[in-house]
Amino acid sequence: MNKVPIHEQERVDDLLTHQLQIIQSDEVFSFSMDAVLLARFASVPKYGKILDLCTGNGVVPILLSTRSEANIEGIEIQPRLADMARRSVEMNGLQDKIFIREGDLRELVKETGHGVYDAITVNPPYMPLTGGDIKLNSHQAIARHEIHCSLEDVISAATKLVRNGGKVNMVHKPQRLGEIITLLRQYKLEPKVIRFVHPRSGMESNIVLIEAIKDGKPDMRILPPLIVYKENGEYCEEIMDIYYGSEEGKV
Amino acid sequence: MNKVPIHEQERVDDLLTHQLQIIQSDEVFSFSMDAVLLARFASVPKYGKILDLCTGNGVVPILLSTRSEANIEGIEIQPRLADMARRSVEMNGLQDKIFIREGDLRELVKETGHGVYDAITVNPPYMPLTGGDIKLNSHQAIARHEIHCSLEDVISAATKLVRNGGKVNMVHKPQRLGEIITLLRQYKLEPKVIRFVHPRSGMESNIVLIEAIKDGKPDMRILPPLIVYKENGEYCEEIMDIYYGSEEGKV
Repeated sequence: MNKVPIHEQERVDDLLTHQLQIIQSDEVFSFSMDAVLLARFASVPKYGKILDLCTGNGVVPILLSTRSEANIEGIEIQPRLADMARRSVEMNGLQDKIFIREGDLRELVKETGHGVYDAITVNPPYMPLTGGDIKLNSHQAIARHEIHCSLEDVISAATKLVRNGGKVNMVHKPQRLGEIITLLRQYKLEPKVIRFVHPRSGMESNIVLIEAIKDGKPDMRILPPLIVYKENGEYCEEIMDIYYGSEEGKV
Repeated sequence: MNKVPIHEQERVDDLLTHQLQIIQSDEVFSFSMDAVLLARFASVPKYGKILDLCTGNGVVPILLSTRSEANIEGIEIQPRLADMARRSVEMNGLQDKIFIREGDLRELVKETGHGVYDAITVNPPYMPLTGGDIKLNSHQAIARHEIHCSLEDVISAATKLVRNGGKVNMVHKPQRLGEIITLLRQYKLEPKVIRFVHPRSGMESNIVLIEAIKDGKPDMRILPPLIVYKENGEYCEEIMDIYYGSEEGKV
C-alpha cells in the first residue's frame, strides 16, 4: 500500500479482494453492495478503455481493475469525492491503470469526442428530485438524488461516449425499470441482459443490473435471480463468491 | 357438463379446477402453461367487464370465471378457434358469464367505444414475422406468429379498450421485454408489476407476466421469481397450487 493522506471523518476499509483498500466516510460517501454487484456483473473488455460514470469514491474502477487490463477512467462531479477516489487509487498503486477525472459527465464528450470508450459502467443517483426536503448540498444527497444529473443525463452521456457495439452496464432500482428501459432504447442503447437481485427468496427485487449494447438488436435475457440472504440470515454462496471469491467471478 | 358437438381431431381436456373442461386439438390449438399463469396472475375486478384479447380456445376467460363475477368477453380472429371457444363455454354452462366474439381486435373499439373494459388480459402471438418459412395459413402459426396482429396492434387496441386506471395483463417472452415496455409506455399503459417465470432455479426466465395500468404513474415492482420445476423434476409447490390448488389462488 502506498501512503496517502487520510482526512478527518475518513477511514480505510478493506475491499476483501486482491488486498485492495478504499477510503470511505459515513458523512461523505461509502459504497454499497450495489457497486460491488455492478463491478462483478459488468461485461468489460480485457483491454481497451472503460469509463465509470458517477464514480463516487472510485470503488467500481478499483474493483474492475482486478478483472481487466483496460485503462479505466472514473468521472465524479463532487471535488471531495473525486479527491477521495484519487487517493484510493494511489493507495492501491493503481495510478497507471485508473484515472479519476473531476467533472460533469454532461460535458465530458466535448473533451473526449464521441464513441471513445469500449464499455461504460454507472451506479447513478437512484432518486428523482421531488422538490421535497432533501438537503441539496450534502455529499450524500448528491450521490443519491438526481441533483446534478438525471437518469436521462446519464444515459444521454453514455450513448455518446461508448463506441458502437460497446456495452453500458448500470445498477439501479427496479422501481424505475420502465423509465430506464424506455430511455436506454430512446438513446440507442438496447437492453440485452438483466439480472434482478432479491434480498431473500420469496421477496421482491430491490436491485437491478442491466447490460445494454450501443446499436444492439432487440433481444433480452433475464438471468437467474440473485438471492442475497439465505433463510438463516447468512449470505448465499454466490454473494460470498462475489465478495470474497474467485478473481474472475462475474455475476 | 352440457353436451356440445366435438369435431374430428378435437378432444376434451380437464382444466383440473372447478370441474371445468375445454375443447382442444393438437392440430388446431391447445393452451399452454403461459395461459394458465396469465389467468392466475391477472389482476381482475370482482365485478365489471373483462376482455381477453387473442382468446384462442377461450382458456383464459374460462379460468378467469372462477376468480371473478365480472362479465368476461374473449375476442378471437380465427373462426375455427372462436367456435371451439364458444362450445367450451357452453359445455361448462358459462354462457351467461362469458361471451366469445369472432373478430379482429384492431376493429373492436369501433363497436364497443373507448375505455369500456375494467381489465384486459392477453396472451398474444410471441414471434415477430420474419419473412421466413412459416406456413402462414395454419391455425397454430396464426396463434404463435404476428400474422394478423403485431405486438403494437395488441397494445394499441388494449389502451383504447381499457378504462383509465384499468389494468392490462400480458404474458409474453422475456426476449421481447424491451419492445413490450417501450410500447406499453408509448401507449400510456404503465408497467407496474412484473413476474418472471424460470423453468428451474439457476436458469434464465422463459416467460414474463406483466401488469400495466392505463395512465398509471411510473413505479415498478418485480415480484419474487416463479420457479416451475424442482431439482427432481417435479412441479414446485406454487405451480401445483396454480394448477390444482386454491380457488382464489393468484400468482
